[in-house]
Amino acid sequence: MSTTTSTTALSPDSARQGYDRSRPVRVAVLGVGMMGQDHARRLATLTAGAELVAVSDVDVVRTDAVAAEFGVRAIHDPKAAIVDPEVDALVIATPGFTHEELVLLALEAGKPVLCEKPLTTTPETSRRIVEAEAALGRQLVQVGFMRRFDAGYQQLRALIASGEYGAPLFLHCAHRNATTPPNFSSEMLMLDSVVHEVDVVRYLTGEEVVAIRVIAPRSTTSAPDGLQDPQFVIMETESGVLVDVEIFVNTTFGYEVRTELVAEKGQARIGLPGGFEGGMVTQSGRGWGGSIPKDFKERFGAAYDVEFQRWIDAVRAGTNVDGPGVWDGYAAAAVCAAGVQSLKTGERVVIDLGPRP
Amino acid sequence: MSTTTSTTALSPDSARQGYDRSRPVRVAVLGVGMMGQDHARRLATLTAGAELVAVSDVDVVRTDAVAAEFGVRAIHDPKAAIVDPEVDALVIATPGFTHEELVLLALEAGKPVLCEKPLTTTPETSRRIVEAEAALGRQLVQVGFMRRFDAGYQQLRALIASGEYGAPLFLHCAHRNATTPPNFSSEMLMLDSVVHEVDVVRYLTGEEVVAIRVIAPRSTTSAPDGLQDPQFVIMETESGVLVDVEIFVNTTFGYEVRTELVAEKGQARIGLPGGFEGGMVTQSGRGWGGSIPKDFKERFGAAYDVEFQRWIDAVRAGTNVDGPGVWDGYAAAAVCAAGVQSLKTGERVVIDLGPRP
Amino acid sequence: MSTTTSTTALSPDSARQGYDRSRPVRVAVLGVGMMGQDHARRLATLTAGAELVAVSDVDVVRTDAVAAEFGVRAIHDPKAAIVDPEVDALVIATPGFTHEELVLLALEAGKPVLCEKPLTTTPETSRRIVEAEAALGRQLVQVGFMRRFDAGYQQLRALIASGEYGAPLFLHCAHRNATTPPNFSSEMLMLDSVVHEVDVVRYLTGEEVVAIRVIAPRSTTSAPDGLQDPQFVIMETESGVLVDVEIFVNTTFGYEVRTELVAEKGQARIGLPGGFEGGMVTQSGRGWGGSIPKDFKERFGAAYDVEFQRWIDAVRAGTNVDGPGVWDGYAAAAVCAAGVQSLKTGERVVIDLGPRP
Amino acid sequence: MSTTTSTTALSPDSARQGYDRSRPVRVAVLGVGMMGQDHARRLATLTAGAELVAVSDVDVVRTDAVAAEFGVRAIHDPKAAIVDPEVDALVIATPGFTHEELVLLALEAGKPVLCEKPLTTTPETSRRIVEAEAALGRQLVQVGFMRRFDAGYQQLRALIASGEYGAPLFLHCAHRNATTPPNFSSEMLMLDSVVHEVDVVRYLTGEEVVAIRVIAPRSTTSAPDGLQDPQFVIMETESGVLVDVEIFVNTTFGYEVRTELVAEKGQARIGLPGGFEGGMVTQSGRGWGGSIPKDFKERFGAAYDVEFQRWIDAVRAGTNVDGPGVWDGYAAAAVCAAGVQSLKTGERVVIDLGPRP
Repeated sequence: MSTTTSTTALSPDSARQGYDRSRPVRVAVLGVGMMGQDHARRLATLTAGAELVAVSDVDVVRTDAVAAEFGVRAIHDPKAAIVDPEVDALVIATPGFTHEELVLLALEAGKPVLCEKPLTTTPETSRRIVEAEAALGRQLVQVGFMRRFDAGYQQLRALIASGEYGAPLFLHCAHRNATTPPNFSSEMLMLDSVVHEVDVVRYLTGEEVVAIRVIAPRSTTSAPDGLQDPQFVIMETESGVLVDVEIFVNTTFGYEVRTELVAEKGQARIGLPGGFEGGMVTQSGRGWGGSIPKDFKERFGAAYDVEFQRWIDAVRAGTNVDGPGVWDGYAAAAVCAAGVQSLKTGERVVIDLGPRP
Repeated sequence: MSTTTSTTALSPDSARQGYDRSRPVRVAVLGVGMMGQDHARRLATLTAGAELVAVSDVDVVRTDAVAAEFGVRAIHDPKAAIVDPEVDALVIATPGFTHEELVLLALEAGKPVLCEKPLTTTPETSRRIVEAEAALGRQLVQVGFMRRFDAGYQQLRALIASGEYGAPLFLHCAHRNATTPPNFSSEMLMLDSVVHEVDVVRYLTGEEVVAIRVIAPRSTTSAPDGLQDPQFVIMETESGVLVDVEIFVNTTFGYEVRTELVAEKGQARIGLPGGFEGGMVTQSGRGWGGSIPKDFKERFGAAYDVEFQRWIDAVRAGTNVDGPGVWDGYAAAAVCAAGVQSLKTGERVVIDLGPRP
Repeated sequence: MSTTTSTTALSPDSARQGYDRSRPVRVAVLGVGMMGQDHARRLATLTAGAELVAVSDVDVVRTDAVAAEFGVRAIHDPKAAIVDPEVDALVIATPGFTHEELVLLALEAGKPVLCEKPLTTTPETSRRIVEAEAALGRQLVQVGFMRRFDAGYQQLRALIASGEYGAPLFLHCAHRNATTPPNFSSEMLMLDSVVHEVDVVRYLTGEEVVAIRVIAPRSTTSAPDGLQDPQFVIMETESGVLVDVEIFVNTTFGYEVRTELVAEKGQARIGLPGGFEGGMVTQSGRGWGGSIPKDFKERFGAAYDVEFQRWIDAVRAGTNVDGPGVWDGYAAAAVCAAGVQSLKTGERVVIDLGPRP
Repeated sequence: MSTTTSTTALSPDSARQGYDRSRPVRVAVLGVGMMGQDHARRLATLTAGAELVAVSDVDVVRTDAVAAEFGVRAIHDPKAAIVDPEVDALVIATPGFTHEELVLLALEAGKPVLCEKPLTTTPETSRRIVEAEAALGRQLVQVGFMRRFDAGYQQLRALIASGEYGAPLFLHCAHRNATTPPNFSSEMLMLDSVVHEVDVVRYLTGEEVVAIRVIAPRSTTSAPDGLQDPQFVIMETESGVLVDVEIFVNTTFGYEVRTELVAEKGQARIGLPGGFEGGMVTQSGRGWGGSIPKDFKERFGAAYDVEFQRWIDAVRAGTNVDGPGVWDGYAAAAVCAAGVQSLKTGERVVIDLGPRP
């Protein structure tokens, strides 16, 4: 139950009414290791409508350094950050074993949370959070299964949902990392890596996983002694979709995540080279291939987004022009005018821009 | 993006000193046709550090409608918007023939401008802006050649700049649209479409275009009567790079833009299906292919960005949870715990989540 | 391939000494269903050094028809064909249950056999043939595992053998057919289809398969009632390579066979779109991609082979010219001469071929 | 006019009646440099129905060596080979400047000729052959434009002929070699390399080329001094199809030949990585992609052809078994029997093959 009386924090009522668009959400990032620092940077420079106001970590030195980098408050106790009246919402990027306590505190404080996966490290503790949120009567916690926001997975899910290819029969998955950090254990291949595929299966099929089996082949000689790497995981969903996952975290090169759907009347794969943005390639009675962008917004939408972000960043930094300037506009105009002349005459036209001021 | 009470526009001095990060840039969009509306939406919902404060168009009804949609001011005279003290920077998306006057006014007002291409419709008028900005002594104008912000073009440019493949010899380009709007003229293939390739050539090679020739093959029967479509454009750069552009704007389907570099010791292409993000595929003495994402940031960075934007949007709208919730976190924890058990026993493990609260 | 008057069959001695190149091998095809007819056509029209001399099938009408089509003898009893003195070698394409008896007869007769897969339908009967051939002291039987002659599988095998990617860990296979013939049983997915993957695994790794497990997911609604389709097969080799095979024989469209190798330091796949001839695409520390043909022989070798076969076929049929004729040669010469002129002058040159005789 | 009285050579009458299938065509290869030797090997080992009987070259030593290698006659005067009564047909692989005389002699002798490109080195001499053959009243000469027998070009031609994509508008071609032999001149890029594209254009469109223009960009530093490499060739066909060819013969690596068709309603490309056999990839209103092999004959037809050729070669050489033997058949049978058992029980089944005899 939220007990905060702050009038500036997001109250349950204001949550229901919706924010005033002119007011950014004040966010604190808890845990500023590699992942938390990346999220802090994201909130500070890329996320419209967000204002990074604080970072918090039990490592005091690191907290102060990151706070200074972004010009925000350092709060040395994550629990204090959760109840801070100047903080509207929380990103939790601390180690997994701390998640249960922090998320429950955030639920009590009535504040929205984006919690990095895993939600918690055991089913029992996760179940406790499920029940706490259910008792609260509204959803405040989002878990960091970010593949749901990847264009490829969204395309694959839409394809399954469309029913065009009939019922799904198989999902063949591979998840490969170049190397593992020190002290990575055989269990962590499941808890740290396959956990993403578990969510992907549930997201794509809309079904729960009802059984799992792990087969341990021989290990690669590139893995540390004692680490069972790779592993082969077989899952079954409620309706009988068979899922296999090759998890291999010491390939020595690159990061690859791919999923292939095999349905009754067609197949589709993402994560392999091939295809335009999102990259889904299908096979069906119509042949193999993919769709063609229908217009420039689909093809270059991301480039427009980056263009605008970089322009605003340059304006704020007082270092305009970051992108193409007037000389570029002039040169293009001169070449195009010559092109129109050539179209009319059929002749080669020479262009002279004159001296650049 | 927090609110601010400042009433002064960005002064030349403040531009040099840099903005205070906590203060958003107040932007007005001039021209709110299809393109301008899309830019207004981008500034209002995606660009961190920007605040859309006004829209302006000679079409009064449209201006009022778009202003209402975004909850910002409607300014019926674009020139008034430029000098408005509550406006820090301008996006110009009005028709090309108005650009000269508006950009010159913005230069006078000392305000940063992001001007949609073309800068102006003739070399003479563009040259006038070049000189006006030069006289001002600082760069305030960016032209909307957004392909410079596309991952593929950036990869291609970096490859040329690296010198790894030797000097560039050819750029083979294709630019294809499904259909043209009414009244699209043969000249507009050059002025509206090939203008992008002109900038691409200059961006990729760092050289000016010194000659151009347009060859008119027969027209497609899908083009309106009198429209010369497709055209074949040949350009030469200062050092002798030969550029050919197939421009074809009534293919009847899809939007395709591609560029292939042929250099002394290798080739590279973008814009064709194939490859991971950005999609560059190379050919050289090492074979054909591309690079593999080195880590999850490269592979899923965009997904994290979207995840955060959608989470903040949901928090602001008071409609949390938008993404995966605690049940998803619990289900994943339960499946992974069963997986660890299977890894130890080698047996298939059945999962029972219990009732959902 | 000249004619010969020899009436003696290939004796064990002549086999050891080698054939005289000027003398074709006289082959009989036993079993002329779809597969046997295709093999008869292959021997009669494509295989240099072979002479189709007889066909044999228990279906007398079919035997006579096929014999007439190819202008060869019809022998109604396959056993008679095996001992016929005018027959040097045998292709066995009869149903699997007849193979044991026919192959053993051929061994007795000391004649080389190309036997369609399966060698026999049970391990016991196959073992009996192994022992009979071993007792004979020389190899006379080849089994029709034709994937060993596919460019892709050969490339994949060479890659494994090179050791460049370290030890193999996984082989992920898929084998898909559009539909099954009537009366196809659940066991036949294994005996008729997966049997190819079994040989592929042995061919690629050079190891025996030591364990197998079949998982039966739900069946596609496109499969006949009672047919378990698809199936998921997991095999293990001597050194611990884990092999999984998706076998799915009612996809409703197309025929697809693919294999992906995952080794300690790289991966490679064949059978997916992508890549030049053979189509192997690799992933390793050098990126993903493939090799580029090194010369025209590699790129167009097959085209030269077809060109020569079609030319000889036309000459034999007395219907020369089948391919490009002298007018084509003349037109090319005229265009190229004009091209050389244009290279010297830089001008467009018009070509006039004159009237065609 | 044929003056030969030989009764064994192919007479005009026998040509009209067609050959007896049991009798091979006796072929002599004129010119046994790299290309001629390769053709001799092809005729001796791959082409069904052909019998290599002689080789001929002005280089006496080389002629004798090649003749010995293949066990055929050495004829030191190519003109003698043409009229030799034991020779039915001729492959001409001598230098281009000798072609006119040799082809005219073959026409006189009434013998079929497969003449390597170019037919002759000038339009005038080629025209003379056209007229000589026309006077003869039947076609005896085939020119070695072997791309017409490449699966990709055949697919592209069929696509154009189908009219599905409307009229062709562009053909974009690239032709790249790793390096050139010594003394390769700027004219030879046209006469030796682009000559293939000239035929491709005529083959694909069924139209004559009516104009040509060559643009010379700067040369690569990898080309010998004085060699204009690369070149850019623009051709126009009767109906107005615009063809551009990048010819680049010192890329330092690999051999690449590709063609892209741009038609009114679709595009298609061959020669790039991507696609199954033949490799055509299309773009149209249905998306981008290709077709899926419809059955095992399409996917593995070439493997069957190679399997049979290698089996016959091994039988002739007396070195059977070249391919998979009975142990391979036995091992597959044992694994599959275990697989069927696993399908029934759901359990992992261990396989024991016993000792190998």
